[in-house]
Order: sequence, then C-alpha cells, then structure tokens
Amino acid sequence: MGIGDYSIATLGSHSALQILHGAKQEGFKTIVVCAKGREEPYTMFPVADEIITVDSFKEFPEEELIKKNAIIIPHGSFIAYMGIEATKSMNAKYYGNKAILEWESDRNMEREWLKEKAGINMPLMFEKPEDIDRSVIVKFHGAQGGRGYFLARNTEDFNEKIKAHPGKEYAIQEYIIGVPIYIHYFYSPITKELEILSFDKRYESNVDSIGRISARDQIALDSVDPSYVVVGNVPIVIRESLLPKAIEMGKAVVEASKTIVGEQGLFGPFCLEGVLTPDQEFFIFEISARIVAGTNPFVDGSPYSYLKYDEPMSTGRRIARDIKQAIEQDRINEVIQ
Amino acid sequence: MGIGDYSIATLGSHSALQILHGAKQEGFKTIVVCAKGREEPYTMFPVADEIITVDSFKEFPEEELIKKNAIIIPHGSFIAYMGIEATKSMNAKYYGNKAILEWESDRNMEREWLKEKAGINMPLMFEKPEDIDRSVIVKFHGAQGGRGYFLARNTEDFNEKIKAHPGKEYAIQEYIIGVPIYIHYFYSPITKELEILSFDKRYESNVDSIGRISARDQIALDSVDPSYVVVGNVPIVIRESLLPKAIEMGKAVVEASKTIVGEQGLFGPFCLEGVLTPDQEFFIFEISARIVAGTNPFVDGSPYSYLKYDEPMSTGRRIARDIKQAIEQDRINEVIQ
Amino acid sequence: MGIGDYSIATLGSHSALQILHGAKQEGFKTIVVCAKGREEPYTMFPVADEIITVDSFKEFPEEELIKKNAIIIPHGSFIAYMGIEATKSMNAKYYGNKAILEWESDRNMEREWLKEKAGINMPLMFEKPEDIDRSVIVKFHGAQGGRGYFLARNTEDFNEKIKAHPGKEYAIQEYIIGVPIYIHYFYSPITKELEILSFDKRYESNVDSIGRISARDQIALDSVDPSYVVVGNVPIVIRESLLPKAIEMGKAVVEASKTIVGEQGLFGPFCLEGVLTPDQEFFIFEISARIVAGTNPFVDGSPYSYLKYDEPMSTGRRIARDIKQAIEQDRINEVIQ
Repeated sequence: MGIGDYSIATLGSHSALQILHGAKQEGFKTIVVCAKGREEPYTMFPVADEIITVDSFKEFPEEELIKKNAIIIPHGSFIAYMGIEATKSMNAKYYGNKAILEWESDRNMEREWLKEKAGINMPLMFEKPEDIDRSVIVKFHGAQGGRGYFLARNTEDFNEKIKAHPGKEYAIQEYIIGVPIYIHYFYSPITKELEILSFDKRYESNVDSIGRISARDQIALDSVDPSYVVVGNVPIVIRESLLPKAIEMGKAVVEASKTIVGEQGLFGPFCLEGVLTPDQEFFIFEISARIVAGTNPFVDGSPYSYLKYDEPMSTGRRIARDIKQAIEQDRINEVIQ
Repeated sequence: MGIGDYSIATLGSHSALQILHGAKQEGFKTIVVCAKGREEPYTMFPVADEIITVDSFKEFPEEELIKKNAIIIPHGSFIAYMGIEATKSMNAKYYGNKAILEWESDRNMEREWLKEKAGINMPLMFEKPEDIDRSVIVKFHGAQGGRGYFLARNTEDFNEKIKAHPGKEYAIQEYIIGVPIYIHYFYSPITKELEILSFDKRYESNVDSIGRISARDQIALDSVDPSYVVVGNVPIVIRESLLPKAIEMGKAVVEASKTIVGEQGLFGPFCLEGVLTPDQEFFIFEISARIVAGTNPFVDGSPYSYLKYDEPMSTGRRIARDIKQAIEQDRINEVIQ
Repeated sequence: MGIGDYSIATLGSHSALQILHGAKQEGFKTIVVCAKGREEPYTMFPVADEIITVDSFKEFPEEELIKKNAIIIPHGSFIAYMGIEATKSMNAKYYGNKAILEWESDRNMEREWLKEKAGINMPLMFEKPEDIDRSVIVKFHGAQGGRGYFLARNTEDFNEKIKAHPGKEYAIQEYIIGVPIYIHYFYSPITKELEILSFDKRYESNVDSIGRISARDQIALDSVDPSYVVVGNVPIVIRESLLPKAIEMGKAVVEASKTIVGEQGLFGPFCLEGVLTPDQEFFIFEISARIVAGTNPFVDGSPYSYLKYDEPMSTGRRIARDIKQAIEQDRINEVIQ
C-alpha cells in the first residue's frame, strides 16, 4: 500500500494543527476529530481534509477511522481525553508504543525509568512530610493543571499549608531553583537516529506574570499565589555547550525504554521537561512520551530542524515523514500498533 | 486601474518596515514618510522605494501622496502623531474604517463596543475611589506610555498613592493577575474571513525586569516601581484549546462593529490585548483597531500564518494582499476611505 | 583562488552550528574542532564536512588547519578557550581584527572605546566602595559566568555582602533597572555597510526564574540569590522607533574603533549588550566584538534579516557571505588576519 491508502488523524486540540499541517506537507490525507462547537480552528486553518464532529471525545469514532485506514497520532490531550485503557484497547492504527503509556503516567514507574534505568538527574521526592529537609514544591494529582501547587520550606510549613487542600493526593518534590526548559526529541525506528528538533519554555498562568508585580505590591495585595497552568509557549534556544548533555539524556531514555517495554522501546517525538540550574545541571521533572505543545512555535521549522533539514520540518511533519518512510520501506508495522 | 497605479505609504515608525516589506512582496511601489534624522532604518532595510523626509509629522505630505495615488496604511504611531481629527479629514486614500477610530480611542465607547455589544470579558472599572473593593491598577491618560501606573489594594491605599500624581486624569481598573497576551486578527471585507495571524507578549520596561531582582533586594533598594513602557515584543503561541474562544471573540468584535459604525464595520488587522488567568479566561483591556507592533516578530510569517498560507505571510503583507485582491476585483472602495 | 580553495573552521561550541551551517549555505567546506566526547552535536546536525577531535582545546590543530587553508571564525568560547595571546600569535587564517581583542576584554579599555570615543551611554563605575552613592551591582572577574553577582544599596551594604567573597576581584557598577536587550550588528569591510541582523534577550539561570517565586516565598525560602549564568536565548524584536538610536550606536562604535586600532577597525559581527530603561534610553554594559550566541535563534533568518535579504540570512551565513565576496573581489586580506 502507498501513502494514498492512509490518512493521518488526531483529536482537535493540543498540537493537532501542527500534526495535520505536517501530514499534508508529506502528502497524506488528514482527518480531525472535533468536539461539537470546537471546530473553528480547523476551518480557519485549512489543515484537515475532513472534520468529524462528535458530541464529546468519549464518542471516539473508531470504526469510521478504521474504515478510512487512518493512523492516529496521539498528543497530550488525546491521552487525557481517552484514558490509557481505552487507548490501549483501541483497534485503530496508532503511531507510537502503547506499552510506554503507563510508564509515563505513573510517577513511580516514570522515576524508575528515567532515574534508575536511564540515569537522569531528577529532583528528590519525599515520601512523608516528616522527611522534608529542604525547600519543596507540593504538587497535586489529576487534571487541575498546576493549580494550587505550593512551596514549603520545611515540615512545619508544609503541615500548615496543606490544610487548605484537605483530602487531596499530593507529591512532595525538592524545589530546584533554575530556569524551565523543555527539550523536544525525536527518535525514529526507521532511521535509528535520535534528533533534537527544538526547545521551548512554557508560558504559565499566573506564575509567569507574578514577577511583574513588585515585591512590595505582592506582599500588600496579599493574594498572589502562583498557579502553573500552561497557556502558551515561547521559543528558545539553548547554550550550545549544553547540547552534548541533552543528547546523552535523550539517548539514555530511549535505550532504557527497551529494558522496560521490550525491544521496540520508545519512538517518535518525546520531551524531557525540567530546569537548568546556575551550575548548568539539568533536573528533569517529567517525560512526555509523545508530541508536546511546546513544539507549536515551530510549525515552519525551528533553528535546530533547519540545521538538519533543507526544508521546514516541524515535529508534526517529522512524524508524518517517519510514517511515510515506513510505508515506502514496507515497515509500517514498526511504527504503528 | 492595476496594482502598478498605486503606491503603499506609511509613516516611518512602529511597524512601517513590516508594512512596506509586505507591500513590496505583493508587488506594490512603496513610500515611507520619515521625520528628519530618523530615516536610517528605511535606508538600512530596502523596503521603501521612496523616502519623503519631513521636519515633523505635523507636515504630513498629503498632496504629494495624493498625487502619487498612495494608499496610507495607518499604524499606532500614525494615529498618535496625526490625531484622529486630522486623520478623518485627510483626503489621501486610507486603508481601514475611519469611523472606528473614536470608538477605539475613547475608553467608554471602547467598553460599550467590546463589553456591551460584543460580550467580551473585561476587567471592572471603578468610577470613584470609594468604590474600590478589590486590588486595582491605576492608569493615567495620555502619551506617557505606561509610566507611573500603580497598584492599590483598597480605597485608602489608592488615596495615599494618588498623591504622587496631582492633577492627572486616571482610570481605576480591576487588577487581574494573569499572563499578558496579544491576539493579532485580520478580517478581510474581500474574503469575508476572520483570520488569526499571530500572538505576542510585549516586552515592557521596566516591569519585565523587576522579577529579576530578588524580593529581598527589591525591598532593600526601595525604589523599584514598575513602568509599562513597551520597548519590544516576544513571539508566543497559545494553547490550542484556547483558539475557539479567541476566534469567537474576534468574530464578536467584528460583528458588533457593524452595529456601531455601520455595515462596513471594522476590517483589516486588529488586536485584542489582555491577560489569561489560571482559569484560562481571557480578560481584554483594550482593542487596537489596526496593525500592532506585536506582529513585528513575524516579518517572515508566524506559526499560524504558515498553517493557512503556503508562503510567508506577515500582517503587513496580508494588508497588501487585501488591497491587491480588492484592486483585482474592482472593489478598492471597499477597503479604502 | 576560489571558494573551493578555502574551508571555514571553528571550535565545536557556542555558535558553531550556526557558523558552519551558514558556511555550507554559501558553498564552503567546513571543519569543526571538537573536544573529545563532545562531538555529538556535530554528527546529529550535518553542518561539518570534517570533525577534528582533540583531547582538549589546548591542543589546537593549527598546522592541520593551515594545511587545509581553513579560515577560523572566532566566537565567544573560542577566545575563552584559546586566550588572547594564543589567538594573536596564531598563524592560521582568522576572520576578524585581532587588534580589537584586548580593547574588548579589558574593562577600562572597553570603556574608553565605547564611552569616551563612541559616546555610548554606559552605567557608572565606582572605583572604591566609599564612592557608592546609588544602587549598584557587584560583578566578579573571570570565568564564573555571572555567579555570585550581588546588588548593594550603599557602601555599608556592600561592605557587609562582600565578606562572602574574600579575595575576589570585583567591579562596582551602577544598577540600572531596565529590560535586558542584545543588539546584533554586522559591519562589512567589503560592502562598507552596517547592518542590524537581530535582537535577543538572554535566558539566564537562575535570575530568569526567581520572578516565578512569589515575594512571600522568596523571603520564606531564605536562599534565593540570583545568578546570571547564560543557558539560552529568546528571540525578540525592538520597538521600531528605537532603531535610529541602535543604528547610531553601531555606527559610532565602528567609527571609534578606527581611532583605537587603525583604519581597518572593527568588522564582522558584534553585539552591544545592555538594558533599555522606561525612558527608552539604552545603557550598554559590554561589547562582544564577534558573533554572540544570541544569534542562534535565527539560524533560518530573523525578522530583520528578512527585511534586507530575499533568503534566510543568519549571522553565521552573513560571515561566510562576507568572506565569499572578499574572495570573489580578490580582497580576502581585508577580512582575514
């Protein structure tokens, strides 16, 4: 079968515009599945050959997508809306390794993968409030997206502040002071190459605005509590002498993934999310084992993708290129599940 | 008449480089009107076929522009320098709807348009200091460009701080804590389509630097008062799930404009300027009913314009494209006044 | 000799990817000299035709580069690793004016050049702690890269804080509150034109993250001391009405350079590094008389380079273009030493 026999499909959110735009650049037909009333971005920007509207993402049109021989590209919102179980039991073609999903979503498994197996530098976690021996950030589980997270400087401070969050599940993480940085990797099972496609920093509300309030006013206003809700992204480049370390981390994560989910391992786009300290050390908080919205500034290519390709290469397009090469080499089963 | 019979002209400031560059991309002759001694950017960057130097913008060379059949593209500095009355009585061809100018420049009319007619979420305004019931920002009228603005947490605090600004006209606005965001729209009367071309955040002095001073030092230095003077712009992208709301707001503003200034309404580039809260709600402070300098990072196209066009499409070029299509369709009177 | 008779070479760090990428765009063969174990970026991104690995940069392969008729492009890390003396006594072809190196590296000579000769606005320096009459920032010499710098509000505060840094050489500089801005110039001895190629702001750890900690938490955590270690760069554009001043400064610096190092003066890329105050005044702290890493966001061109060129023009490519034009016009000796 050739490229014309497939479609590229995704949910209408997150990085769908980029994914579909990239798929069209590579010659694929494209389908976007939209929640009713949220189709406008996909009519304003002509990246979808077909829009399938559903009342809610719970009614995922799997049969229709199978009939159209669509390959689904997962993104952050896709997993959030569908859930891991539904994703794993889905029969439609799926780009990526489903076995990695639980390793990414479970904090302990993620830590085993990144820290134990791949040797990635991560902030300490404190099992119990009594263990706190330095400044920490307290994060809550679930889909609140960074709301209510708070800093505490010791056990007493934690005990006081946690009162405002009765009954919530939390994690206590060492607070590392450093600048946020998100590294966008791509590993192709077809070329066997790891690539760095771009970097971003998130634009978070309201934490990226509180520094615009003077210290005196913050204290006077008496109500300036940071939230970490991602509302956008800012393109950045990284100091070139930090690239060897970034590359080493990416390779280690891919290698380690093979020890936890088998030979196919992690492939496609992924992102290491962390901070860089004044000592130029990376501390990684999390991995996203798929395309992140931080690649959206680079719809027409990034400073890094231009170094490698002679044409605009977004992460969305890179995915489509991977699928195209797999089809052309009759290896499509190596990239879809 | 064809494209060759027109020129595109603007004042040498603000976004003139982008406007003229875009006009040349579309095949127009270009003219820039410069204040004496400020021509250098327009010789360094070869975007103007002709430079007309005036001693001051008060000597606007209208006759000469009329003779050259120039179409003037207004930008923020254009209106600031010329004034609304002079702009309205100008006989040279002007891209845009002059009737919208007073609706944009008068805080009350702007509010009626955006909030009452278009249903846009805006911060509360307090008529009298006595009414203050939450944190507010106090803004001064006129061309100070964000100097002296201050925060107050209640009436007493306001009364104390306003003493430093005797005799100034002010507006008291609810202070919304959220990240600044500027949405760059384009509405074409020729295609009847609303487009989102890009987003930016401003780079403001000194408010975007005070967060680099530690709280302890801010308090020690005893002189860290924020100003909000725009000195640059930073490109950003927005969370994709916020696009439907952004599009809805843009459409509402265009529709509402027809009820206030007649059927032609607002057209060309415009910008909604506001903040995004942790609840992912937009609060809009202001509209710019023309090209904003926040589009300047995108001289070669933005992540959004690349989704729609197969070529670099700045806002400046989009304006020229609109005029070109109007000329080609013999509808030039629909875009100029 | 033609372009094919030369290679472009640099050390593998800083802005080497951009430099080599640009050189290949202009048709040159390229060589990168890498420290052992740090070659990966130059294999991931195919910009180097040849990689020469050395155990350390101290073993600079000068003979080999001379044999290959390579032209070395210096960047910040190049000078840092090689040292000024070794650079000056090097016999390999070198792009740039070596005579400018000591003027740039010595704080007093730099000040004489920029402030006395070129009339550039710079922050005050205080010779002795007793002279401090306003808020100051205290900077340490050497390769610590912005660690330990501290603010002091008067002599007493200085005397207290300096105790933590016994024996260190320091400079006491007036602390100007304004937003950081880096202006990327290029002056070609071949075209005799000054160009502005782009602007950036640095991304510094941890100072660009401390504003994300609320004032209350900063004070509670008791350990938030800013460092100014550059770990990346963010693209920005500048208010267009500030360009005439930026151009004037660039020209003044080039002109003044001729009075200090002779007729050839400063050429190639250089950067003025400073802040912009709310009064829209530039205060320049430093000059980099070569390519800066702040140009790395613009591997595929910047909003400014697109205004001038009809193709992507990074600073790295602009250097190669300069060399190419020099070769074609048989003026290579005007750009290499």
